Amino acid sequence: MNKVRASAPQLEGLVPYDPKYLPAEAYLSANENPRDVDDEVRAAIARRIAQVPLNRYPDPLANRLRDLIAEANGLDRANVLLGNGGDELLFDVALAWGGPGRSFLDLPPTFSVYAANARLTNTRCVDVPRRADFSIDEAAVLERVGKGDIDFVIVTSPNNPTGQRASTAFIEELLDATDALVLVDEAYFEFSRATVRPLLATHENLAILRTFSKAFSLAGVRLGYVLANAPVIEELCKVRQPYSVDAVSQAIGEVVFENRARFEPGIREIIEERGRVMEALRTLPGVTAYPSDSNWILFSMEDAGAAWQYLYDRGVLVRDFSSAPMLEGCLRATIGTPEQNDAFIRGLRDFLSESRERRARAMQ
Amino acid sequence: MNKVRASAPQLEGLVPYDPKYLPAEAYLSANENPRDVDDEVRAAIARRIAQVPLNRYPDPLANRLRDLIAEANGLDRANVLLGNGGDELLFDVALAWGGPGRSFLDLPPTFSVYAANARLTNTRCVDVPRRADFSIDEAAVLERVGKGDIDFVIVTSPNNPTGQRASTAFIEELLDATDALVLVDEAYFEFSRATVRPLLATHENLAILRTFSKAFSLAGVRLGYVLANAPVIEELCKVRQPYSVDAVSQAIGEVVFENRARFEPGIREIIEERGRVMEALRTLPGVTAYPSDSNWILFSMEDAGAAWQYLYDRGVLVRDFSSAPMLEGCLRATIGTPEQNDAFIRGLRDFLSESRERRARAMQ
Repeated sequence: MNKVRASAPQLEGLVPYDPKYLPAEAYLSANENPRDVDDEVRAAIARRIAQVPLNRYPDPLANRLRDLIAEANGLDRANVLLGNGGDELLFDVALAWGGPGRSFLDLPPTFSVYAANARLTNTRCVDVPRRADFSIDEAAVLERVGKGDIDFVIVTSPNNPTGQRASTAFIEELLDATDALVLVDEAYFEFSRATVRPLLATHENLAILRTFSKAFSLAGVRLGYVLANAPVIEELCKVRQPYSVDAVSQAIGEVVFENRARFEPGIREIIEERGRVMEALRTLPGVTAYPSDSNWILFSMEDAGAAWQYLYDRGVLVRDFSSAPMLEGCLRATIGTPEQNDAFIRGLRDFLSESRERRARAMQ
Repeated sequence: MNKVRASAPQLEGLVPYDPKYLPAEAYLSANENPRDVDDEVRAAIARRIAQVPLNRYPDPLANRLRDLIAEANGLDRANVLLGNGGDELLFDVALAWGGPGRSFLDLPPTFSVYAANARLTNTRCVDVPRRADFSIDEAAVLERVGKGDIDFVIVTSPNNPTGQRASTAFIEELLDATDALVLVDEAYFEFSRATVRPLLATHENLAILRTFSKAFSLAGVRLGYVLANAPVIEELCKVRQPYSVDAVSQAIGEVVFENRARFEPGIREIIEERGRVMEALRTLPGVTAYPSDSNWILFSMEDAGAAWQYLYDRGVLVRDFSSAPMLEGCLRATIGTPEQNDAFIRGLRDFLSESRERRARAMQ
């Protein structure tokens, strides 16, 4: 067998992103909406897809969907760019504002894909770690960008996987302190009810990332979008794949966006359930639950890995961050339906009481 | 307004890929299949989509579709990787085998996206131009890879936009002459009936790219795949977007691939029509038509830009390469339905006879 030469050196030892998605009864690991689109939306989607010519290339820029999003946000088509999930747009930002000799400022612990994208694009990754309570070290970030060598920053608001949003005052201060591109990842903003969109009017260096994957129940369809001033969108268009958003996804996105009011009750339920789950976690001895503006709760505890397995054995899949840097002992539970949340709380409570019993027996 | 700093230097002056897709009656510009999927396949697709949970992330690797493709090609799942169109996989190859300090060998004139991807990934692009008849300068290619500094090569077979396939003997010689990754882009192999797939058994440095966009009428759906030995697939997995192929596209791809025999009559018609269009072009004075193993014909003529406009004004959209390097005076006409091909030939014939009349009048 003829051999192939090694791939590029920055790939050495790199492990592909693993969502650790396993079969379960209650999927509480991936921050998905627990409810699929309703039957009426599903039927409208089917009717729309039936009209899509599959044999023709899609509109490269998804202009119909672009216009719908622009109008809803008081912006123009030139301020909106669709992508194959937020993932593609995150990569596009790294391609366009990163690269050899350029620097990205990361605020870990946060979404690990940002740092992976920096690595793949040969961008230097500079860390300003969050504080112990996962809040942003604002003074340190402002000081770091003041050095002038940072080309882009990502502020996740709410931050995944820790849960809280960034303050708008801080983001404005950051935008004023640098000409680096500041990407505010608002993938979960529908659950925080907070956006920095008004700052687009005054800051060309702001870009906002959003997605249909969470609040709009379309994780399976892969649709994300960036809101930004036209010069930023134009640079992203240079690096994007020209047909990255397929015609069927465009059609589905249009129907869902036209019907977005129908997703409001589901969003409200998630926000209410988040409060209920938080209260329940706070009654559990040995569990520290972190405040959340999103559709999940991060919590830390002893034996987190064992707790993950215990929950999984009972059909509840949460996300195990217990051996991730800066997240030692942490698990993240997506807010599901009330029944799924009950199963999660019950499972965790049982794990803790069985642990106590084991310890008590061991001490006899 | 606060300003944003410039994007990466390799983007300066870069113009986004423009497919020049304009409204027309006969779309003969993008090498699409002129026929959409048939009604039975369309109905089966609708039934399959109805079963897809839209709110859940897709299978990252599209394993069901992977297995179908692997089985049809006498390979294993580990030898197949799906992508968001061939485009994504082309970019993945540049990311994984290109990058700063690495080199890509291009054989222009060919698909312009290869060189654009090299630029975006800061890969040096080395050209070995084709001969005047667009055949590969095989000796020059073998000599160039012999220097040892080429990290990957793309051989397009059949070559877009010139039309002819590469010889299998040459590709085997190339694979033996280098440990560079040799990507054979077989996007149109269903129209040439020729594949280098058997060489995978003996050459780890071979990767083959295919697509559902052409023969299988799914340009709108964005599905491509790579066939390669497992070590190559593993490297591509490191750089790919983890959820790049959405769940609905996976479902559509499965139905189409299960029904692939139904596309055979359409493929046969295209091959027959290609012969008929070629004969007609060869009767036209002043037109040089290049042999084609694919679903289009490239031809050159005087006043090609004016001919393009004349055809377009009559509802026939072909692709204008007349000001592209090494393709001066060339137009490319996709093989459409018999009616569309008739409209194309009639339009070109009318343009030529009107041109002759104009010239005759000018000489009076």
